Order: sequence, then structure tokens, then C-alpha cells
Amino acid sequence: MADRTYGEIPGYPVGSAFTNRAELAKSGVHRPNQAGICGGKDGAESIVVSGGYPDDEDFGNEIIYTGHGGNDPQAKRQIAHQKLIQGNAGLARNQFEGNPVRVIRGAGGDNDQSPASGFRYDGLFRVVDHWHEIGKDGYRIWRFRLTKIDSNANPSPASRTEPAGRASATIQRIIRSSANARRVKELHDHRCQVCGLRLETPAGPYSEAAHIKPLGRPHDGPDVQGNILCLCPNHHVLLDSGAIYVDDHSVVRSAVDDMKLGELRTAGKHIIDYTFVKYHREHYGISEIEIELHDHGG
Amino acid sequence: MADRTYGEIPGYPVGSAFTNRAELAKSGVHRPNQAGICGGKDGAESIVVSGGYPDDEDFGNEIIYTGHGGNDPQAKRQIAHQKLIQGNAGLARNQFEGNPVRVIRGAGGDNDQSPASGFRYDGLFRVVDHWHEIGKDGYRIWRFRLTKIDSNANPSPASRTEPAGRASATIQRIIRSSANARRVKELHDHRCQVCGLRLETPAGPYSEAAHIKPLGRPHDGPDVQGNILCLCPNHHVLLDSGAIYVDDHSVVRSAVDDMKLGELRTAGKHIIDYTFVKYHREHYGISEIEIELHDHGG
Repeated sequence: MADRTYGEIPGYPVGSAFTNRAELAKSGVHRPNQAGICGGKDGAESIVVSGGYPDDEDFGNEIIYTGHGGNDPQAKRQIAHQKLIQGNAGLARNQFEGNPVRVIRGAGGDNDQSPASGFRYDGLFRVVDHWHEIGKDGYRIWRFRLTKIDSNANPSPASRTEPAGRASATIQRIIRSSANARRVKELHDHRCQVCGLRLETPAGPYSEAAHIKPLGRPHDGPDVQGNILCLCPNHHVLLDSGAIYVDDHSVVRSAVDDMKLGELRTAGKHIIDYTFVKYHREHYGISEIEIELHDHGG
Repeated sequence: MADRTYGEIPGYPVGSAFTNRAELAKSGVHRPNQAGICGGKDGAESIVVSGGYPDDEDFGNEIIYTGHGGNDPQAKRQIAHQKLIQGNAGLARNQFEGNPVRVIRGAGGDNDQSPASGFRYDGLFRVVDHWHEIGKDGYRIWRFRLTKIDSNANPSPASRTEPAGRASATIQRIIRSSANARRVKELHDHRCQVCGLRLETPAGPYSEAAHIKPLGRPHDGPDVQGNILCLCPNHHVLLDSGAIYVDDHSVVRSAVDDMKLGELRTAGKHIIDYTFVKYHREHYGISEIEIELHDHGG
């Protein structure tokens, strides 16, 4: 595994300015001289957002970042498909491992968010989602949703409060429920629609409501029963990471090897809207285009 | 299922004051005239914190709340063991379903946090953990950690931003990692130490680092390798909810039926500290005392 430094670089607080990439590289805040992502498949430590990819969207505390590869840096256009390899795989890995990414904005990025000249270190972000889509130029791009870690904030409501100075290392399952989510779980009696498992605990059965087309930006899937599956935590992780998808015949398939895992389990009054299933397949599951890419490009 | 009203009661904003329980009950903010928990095994909608249980701890935005049952309301002492039934089961259910609990503080509770007289509605809290322990009076009590939902806060870093007015319904897996957590997952090559499963995704294997003795108040388990297990999400949920525990012979057992599930899988350099295993068993797993209670008391 590469020797990576996650988190703040001593001596370079948020807001630190750099005249050019050479100066930025020398500081250690973003080490490569050209690449937008400093990372490999083991993880990514920093990214530069500077307008090189036409699909980037910068909302300040939230960034929809485009992976690397397949672009023409002069024309700032995509000219080929991107793959989930190298720094792209690294950003996805950060999502799984919880490692933060240093975000550096450069002149040329979003007008409202970027410095007028040079580069600026803008703090630590988390990778909270990754998926793929066809970008503005007609080629497949990988996308990462990053949200700023507010170091001044109180611990979020469901966090386990930790003594100052202790390394934080936990997974929080913050469950925000809705009547529709609860109803779908009830209709399935908390049995996973993929594997049929019902987790039994001293406090009763446990299941999760998974949104097929995700809630929130940029997907904006609705919180309706047709967009919700009742899943065990394992299959929830697999669905959200695109490791499994549902085809138009209600068959659950593995995106890793395209194997058929079985029919999606049904419950009488729970009608799934296959528009959302298609959206998930096209943005999270590995599509046929992607499989072809894997076969030919590796 | 009982007809429950979760969340704010219209007309009664945070800070609303009530002279007595009758007035409080009439408002609908906390419907029972005597019970501290308004709820059943399907969920709990509100609680009153007013010093009736000697083990309650009130930190303002965080409350370690004692379940109901087994206390002498006059002497304010525990005189019998508590069980995970009725309102206690309901609070645990809220943790699973994500439903918020209205918290009402009454005079007689923590000096710093409680009103001088009568009762005050203090907002919505989440149930983020539940476990059992032997209370100050020597009897088993159920404990619930509640944290205040800050309705004014920005969305927490990893939340999916949702348009205003849309019901929020999602599970967030906010992963905060540490070198020790990552190292344990690596040592096990992301295989669950309970079932041996390794979740495969397009972005590589996914596993979770579970702290045996939880981090944070009041457990304050350390973030060391001896206190971490590499688990699949399903077994992480089962461990955290006390559905499974590890005995002193490294055997994983179901707390639901006490069945042996198998030996905890080992990795050469990963040495588990059985002090933490014992802590987990005594506070999350159903102990022999608890099993006896189930047998005799139901």
C-alpha cells in the first residue's frame, strides 16, 4: 500500500494559498504536479477542483466531483470513457474506509467557489457516494459526492461523543425514517428482498429501507414505496455500492460477475417502480457498456 | 400497531411549559398521566425525564436514560430487574426505525437541565444506543443514549441534502476510520470474523470495524486493535444490538436463543482483549441473569 497522509498537513490551515501547482506540490497538500487526484486504488488523499472537467458541480460545502481519465486537458472535454481504477477507485475506497480528502480549489473552477488566481486549500471533505453516468460530452464518467467536514461543528446528533484527542473511528448508522420506509419494512416483515434474511435481535427484527434511486442531490429520488426496498444491511451496502442491481425481470444480479442471485422477493401491496430500478442500474450497477470496458480496457 | 404520533405536536414548540402532568397529557406532548415512557414494543413517542430513576444522566443535548419498571416511585429506588419489554422495547425500536422521541423535562431532574417547576418540552431526540447494566441499587436496568436532533443545524456532513419539505428517510453510514480500524480490516482481508463473508463491490471489498466496548459516553471503549472486530454489516448490527456475543472461549453465540454460531475467526497479529468482550457480553448480550428473567418473568 502506498504511503498516504490523510487529513490536514501541519502548517497549512484551511485557506492557505498557493501561487501554482509546483508550490502546492512542494507543500505536500497535493503532491502530484499534474494529476487532479492524489491517490491509488488503496485510497485518495487530496483532489484539485479547478474546472478541468465540464461535469464538476461545486456547491461550496458539497461538491459533485468527476473522476479522472478520458479528458482532453486542453479542450477541457471528455474524449473517452472513465474507469473505476487508480484515483477513481481511491475515492471510492475513501468512502468505504472513512478517510478524508483534502480539497484544493484552483482558479478556473466554479466562479463563486474558486480563488481568483492560483490555488487554495479549502479543508477536508468526506466521500459520501460514488456512481457513474454519461457526462455532457457523451462519455461515461465516475462521479463522487463530497461533503465538507465541519471541524467546528458539534458532534452530529447520533455521533458517539468522544473525548478530545482520541482518534475517532466508528460507523454511525443514522436512521431517518419515514412512514413509507416503515411501511415497506412492515410489508416484508423485515425480510431482505434479496436474500430473505430477517435479522433477529433482543429488541425485535432489524431491516433497512433502501432507496433505489437515491435521495438528495443530484439524484433526487423520491421517498415513495415504489422507490424503496427492504434489505438486510449487507445487501443494502451491496445495492448502494452498485455491487448488485435488479434487471427488468425482477432478477437480482451481481455487477461484479453478472451472476444471477435470484428473484427479488415481493410482498403483495409493495409495488416497485421500475423507472427507479433502471436509474439505479444505469448509475450504480455496472452496465453492459462498463462490462465491455472492463473486458477490453481492464 | 398502536397509533403513534412521532415528532413535534403542532402548537407546542420547544420550550413549551406545563404546570403538571394532567396539562402535559392533555396537550398530547406526553399522553400518559403517570408513565415516564409513552410507547409500546412498536415504538416510543415521548419520555419524561424528572429524576424518578437514580441512574439517569442528563448532559443537556445527550441523555443517558433509564428504562421503566422495577422502581419504587416513592423512594425513587430500583427494587427489581427491568426487562426489554413495553416502553423499553419501544425505545430500542425507535433506534432501529429512526423515529424521534419527544423529551419532556420535569422539576426534580438534573439541576442544570430541568425546569424549576412543572414540565417543559425540550425537543426531539434520537435513540442512538441501548444496553443493560446493573444500576446503583443493584438491579438490572436498561439504558438508552439519546442525542438531541438539532433542527437548526446544517445537514450533517454526510447527509444527503434533501429539498425542503421532503420527508427525510435514509440511513447514513458515516464512517470515521482510524489506523487501527483499517489495520484490523486489512489483517482479516475484509472477511467477517463471525461468518467469513467478504462483501465484494466494484470498488473492492467492504467490511466494517466494530468496537467491542463502544466508543464514547458512557462506555468509553478505546480505539485499539484489541477492541476491534472486522465484521460484515449484518454481524455488526447484531453485535451492536446485543443479538450476538462472544464467550470467553472465542465462541460466538446468539443471545436470542443462546445457540453456538461458531468460533470467532482469527488473524495472526490481531489479538483481541477479552476484557472488552466481557464488557460487551455484560452490557449488550443477554446474560445468564437476563435469560433467567426471560424464563421466569416473560
